[in-house]
Amino acid sequence: MEDAYAYVDDQSDRFLEDLIRLCRQPSISAQKVGLTEMAALTATVMGEYGLQARLLPNGNDAPLVYGFREGRSTRTLLFYDHYDVQPPEPLELWESPPFEPTVRDGKLYARGVADNKANILSRLAALKAILSTGRELPVSVKFVVEGEEEIGSPNLSQFVVDHRELLRADACLWESGGVNWLGQPNITLGLKGILYVELEARGAVRDVHSSLATIVPNPAWRLVWALSSLKDRDENVLISGFYDRVAPPSPRELEVVRAAPSEEEETRENLGLPGFLLGLSGFELKCRQLFAPTCTICGIWSGYTGEGGKTVLPSVARAKVDFRLVPHMTPEDILEKLRRHLTEKGFSDVTVVAREHGEYPARTPLDHPFVAVVQAAARQVYGVEPVITPTMSGSGPMYHFTKVLGLPVASAGTSYPDSRVHAPNENIRLEDFIRGTKHIIAIMERMKDAPPWS
Amino acid sequence: MEDAYAYVDDQSDRFLEDLIRLCRQPSISAQKVGLTEMAALTATVMGEYGLQARLLPNGNDAPLVYGFREGRSTRTLLFYDHYDVQPPEPLELWESPPFEPTVRDGKLYARGVADNKANILSRLAALKAILSTGRELPVSVKFVVEGEEEIGSPNLSQFVVDHRELLRADACLWESGGVNWLGQPNITLGLKGILYVELEARGAVRDVHSSLATIVPNPAWRLVWALSSLKDRDENVLISGFYDRVAPPSPRELEVVRAAPSEEEETRENLGLPGFLLGLSGFELKCRQLFAPTCTICGIWSGYTGEGGKTVLPSVARAKVDFRLVPHMTPEDILEKLRRHLTEKGFSDVTVVAREHGEYPARTPLDHPFVAVVQAAARQVYGVEPVITPTMSGSGPMYHFTKVLGLPVASAGTSYPDSRVHAPNENIRLEDFIRGTKHIIAIMERMKDAPPWS
Repeated sequence: MEDAYAYVDDQSDRFLEDLIRLCRQPSISAQKVGLTEMAALTATVMGEYGLQARLLPNGNDAPLVYGFREGRSTRTLLFYDHYDVQPPEPLELWESPPFEPTVRDGKLYARGVADNKANILSRLAALKAILSTGRELPVSVKFVVEGEEEIGSPNLSQFVVDHRELLRADACLWESGGVNWLGQPNITLGLKGILYVELEARGAVRDVHSSLATIVPNPAWRLVWALSSLKDRDENVLISGFYDRVAPPSPRELEVVRAAPSEEEETRENLGLPGFLLGLSGFELKCRQLFAPTCTICGIWSGYTGEGGKTVLPSVARAKVDFRLVPHMTPEDILEKLRRHLTEKGFSDVTVVAREHGEYPARTPLDHPFVAVVQAAARQVYGVEPVITPTMSGSGPMYHFTKVLGLPVASAGTSYPDSRVHAPNENIRLEDFIRGTKHIIAIMERMKDAPPWS
Repeated sequence: MEDAYAYVDDQSDRFLEDLIRLCRQPSISAQKVGLTEMAALTATVMGEYGLQARLLPNGNDAPLVYGFREGRSTRTLLFYDHYDVQPPEPLELWESPPFEPTVRDGKLYARGVADNKANILSRLAALKAILSTGRELPVSVKFVVEGEEEIGSPNLSQFVVDHRELLRADACLWESGGVNWLGQPNITLGLKGILYVELEARGAVRDVHSSLATIVPNPAWRLVWALSSLKDRDENVLISGFYDRVAPPSPRELEVVRAAPSEEEETRENLGLPGFLLGLSGFELKCRQLFAPTCTICGIWSGYTGEGGKTVLPSVARAKVDFRLVPHMTPEDILEKLRRHLTEKGFSDVTVVAREHGEYPARTPLDHPFVAVVQAAARQVYGVEPVITPTMSGSGPMYHFTKVLGLPVASAGTSYPDSRVHAPNENIRLEDFIRGTKHIIAIMERMKDAPPWS
């Protein structure tokens, strides 16, 4: 395998070039921008890197890209990735345009580079490096690269159910991952679920002069009051039954979290915060981050938001709210409880007008043999002990792979804590790209020789 | 005077043409657009209509336009108007572009036409009509046309103090006014005061992934909670001492309001409302509209407000809030109480970042002789009994004229209840323009002959 690692170092400029190709193509699922083009480009690059690639239509403009190459052993590793990215707004905060990938100080800046185009290319680069040594891949590989991850993968569930055979594998590597502030690779084994809704309140049929505020209902006030009824200032969600299905973390999960290094100072400084929510720190802070559900205002808008003053009484007010869910909460249950809450609290005028996202939480057991494979490979490549985390605080469609396909799922990737995922100036460090690629090589090699589990 | 009235009918096309000239020039004070140009155009048109006009710089790009013409009597009528307009947003709701004045169905649509360019031209047209008869004006006239009314007239107070002599007069006609739903002319004698502030909450130095909502403070929540603390769902403002200085309406004011016709059905239908705030109707509704102070969210925004879903935790949240003030509340006192409230309620992180407006309430006594002049003139021109209203629910810099200059102030104008002031598709009916112009002629004539009051 040393030849393959050397190839990665040697060909890093070529890989960077191809990564820039991927990042230059906008692919914003929330805005339906560039998805067909990005799917085609992804398939093209897959072909260039030695895979049989094809597009699997799913009834909209974001076909899934499926890739396959048979390996030397009977084992199969499935890669889950996505070619879509978050909206780039607010544009004015980007130091270089989001879809003009730019290298500065050993980092590549572009919307979607960390989440998750660099991982797509890193995985392809790992295959290319192995194949360059003249040998076949140690395991068969399958790629599922979807174009709707950032809008909640609305079609992935049906796709997985319809393609159980095509997706048959022994394990799955997840789309995200990277090193922590201390340079240790993070291996995470789960995701939170999510419910994403838009709330809307309406008043008069048009904006009116604010002098009428004495007698005309103001939807901005209605929305503010309704939101206030959802969560108190101590972060307790007030929706009746919200916490009913929350499963406490297992003793082993708590143990692993306790053992994980603290990065809170780095995180706090990076975000420019005087302190964390509720004044938490240490073990409590780590537990809350991984094991607590949330209720978050992601956006709110109403009335006049331009420069200066405009004395207007808005006709409509809207908010985007997400709930991160932990086992065994479900988006359906929380949606129903949210609707009931609004009605019961007298806010039947505040409607849930859209349910953008709905995903289940998912976790792979800490003691699964595949976890040991990923862990050992990381130890070898990074030269430090990896950090195992029972779950990320983010969400994704992992449930389809753990529950429907029955696969162990772990993350391994190329980002770092300042990658600014979902934010302006998203970036990766090029050194992380190199090491992440080598990690994939090592995982494939070790997976071939691991004791059987399925 | 019949000749003058006939001239108004005869020359209505020419007046409309000049009104379109005024409306075609954008003059958005909140956005600092076109103010110098509009001041120059206003002075030019004033000259064309027989006034000595000049620009009085006030240290910014919005000079005051002053106009004068001596009349036959020793009396002087001061017209207060403004050439600036509200921002035209949201642009997509305009049926014709806001600065491309368009006549449809006997109405002229344009931003600023009702508030208050049609009044400027109507007053000039009245002078022109009188002068066309070969006689001088019955009273001397002075015009003060400022360019900062829509942003709270920040320089008018000093201007009035500095120009007491220049502005010496016997009475003042205010910039707004018109007919009600029943076609009766409204004569209003007062304005509410206003305090306009922007509240801001800040969290992390940039927007972050909403999965961090477990541990990172969310300024959108902080702002929502802070706003909720300002007013309860029964419309009670919760700021300590907010109502302390509120003077109850006098028995005579209540009597006048009780006698005024009800327009609530017309208003309700026009605004597409199922009902009014707090389920009020009748006398209670009218009293609330005129005599109650308010606390209004005019705008709020934070995080992602585009299409689809973006799972983001905002770094900043802002709201624009106005308070309409009744005698004897003051903007300074309410600002201080607002700041104290935020601190005492634990929201010292929510800052008052801008104080856009600050205006005092003002009222002219119902029994002032000038009120009788305006009333009789309206009765003559409109052929129906005018409605006297002790105060508008809106605000403006009337205080400088009532208190500093000691003048009686009444409104008389060209708008109607569907003029959509401050909203898309602002418009006036051309018939109201004609009658409003004749009303000005009648006021000047009657003022000359009224019993002395000053």
